[in-house]
Amino acid sequence: MPGLTIGDTVPNLELDSTHGKIRIHDYVGDGYTIIFSHPADFTPVCTTEMAAMAGYAKEFEKRGVKLLGISCDDVESHREWTKDIEAYGGGKHKVTYPILADPGRDAIRQLNMVDPDEKDAKGVSLPSRALHVVGPDKAVKLSFLYPATTGRNMEEVLRAVDSLLTAAKHGGKVATPANWKPGECAVIAPGVSDEEARKMFPQGFETADLPSKKGYLRFTKRVT
Amino acid sequence: MPGLTIGDTVPNLELDSTHGKIRIHDYVGDGYTIIFSHPADFTPVCTTEMAAMAGYAKEFEKRGVKLLGISCDDVESHREWTKDIEAYGGGKHKVTYPILADPGRDAIRQLNMVDPDEKDAKGVSLPSRALHVVGPDKAVKLSFLYPATTGRNMEEVLRAVDSLLTAAKHGGKVATPANWKPGECAVIAPGVSDEEARKMFPQGFETADLPSKKGYLRFTKRVT
Repeated sequence: MPGLTIGDTVPNLELDSTHGKIRIHDYVGDGYTIIFSHPADFTPVCTTEMAAMAGYAKEFEKRGVKLLGISCDDVESHREWTKDIEAYGGGKHKVTYPILADPGRDAIRQLNMVDPDEKDAKGVSLPSRALHVVGPDKAVKLSFLYPATTGRNMEEVLRAVDSLLTAAKHGGKVATPANWKPGECAVIAPGVSDEEARKMFPQGFETADLPSKKGYLRFTKRVT
Repeated sequence: MPGLTIGDTVPNLELDSTHGKIRIHDYVGDGYTIIFSHPADFTPVCTTEMAAMAGYAKEFEKRGVKLLGISCDDVESHREWTKDIEAYGGGKHKVTYPILADPGRDAIRQLNMVDPDEKDAKGVSLPSRALHVVGPDKAVKLSFLYPATTGRNMEEVLRAVDSLLTAAKHGGKVATPANWKPGECAVIAPGVSDEEARKMFPQGFETADLPSKKGYLRFTKRVT
């Protein structure tokens, strides 16, 4: 199936939502937005995910990152279901982010959020648990595509967003290693010379001593 | 860009690797395989990722899940680089999984593992940090697509694989909620009646009391 992937511009669709009409590019604006689909309202995993996302909303807001849900149920269903989501979370977290309604399935197709294995009672395709982080240039920076049976991990979404923001802040000249968490050392990107790296990081950096002696694995101090 | 996505069959390509010629479908066999690309050998984030994956290899092996790396460098480069990866990991973990060589870029294109923003010195596209979990039916069950600047989180890969295996073991009749970890309660899939659920889980299940009173959010006891 052809589908939106990393580097592609998200289509500038206009859809109804729990916050009124939303045009995707306007919503993304000059920042980062996490667009995430869920198979259906009033289903178990989706409820736990939407509640988890509501719990993380403040963390994303602090970083200037917007949230945007989407499924094929209508706005009225989203509104009713929101009561369940908030009750499940013990009333601690309101669902403050909008949820788009795509009953026609055109948006989820264009956004590569269709799960070919999941159909509703009428045999019509349902969304997968897809999640795209879209940048200020409206292009997909990162995508997670999970099946219906796997609830996502919001801590990993936050970690990946922190990595994206760290790299963007340094013009792509730093990157974050495997299993990195905010506050841990980053690495210096391959295109940066040692001289430039010394200017960028006056506190210095540490080059791993590896058999190849190529000196490419350089850890900077804490990057925030 | 059109690209392989969830539900699609992975192409049955034959490629050179550090373990000799590998045909992808034969390698996957009757189990699950994690196919993961990295932008280039002898680069910082990739080295930390391959070392992290080597550290997790035993966990995947315990679960019968195979690993398969891929990038556009040749086999000789992969072999030399492996010395760096193992040294970086302090010699604790050998790279026991094969790494495919795709100098022609055909495989990474067919596998939707190209990062349009990353090019080598000759302006030729490099792989993204893509990761597909492929099932016994050779179809993609789950995909993570990260940019070059974000090292992946192997703990999340393991968590997602544990979720897939849990759902598969129960014929898709259970699923795992947001932020789930092995040993925590799973949820019962929407298509399963309460009666069937009672037969499946003689120890019972707990239905969340939500405003809609629809009774769809049912947690079973520990599922392993």
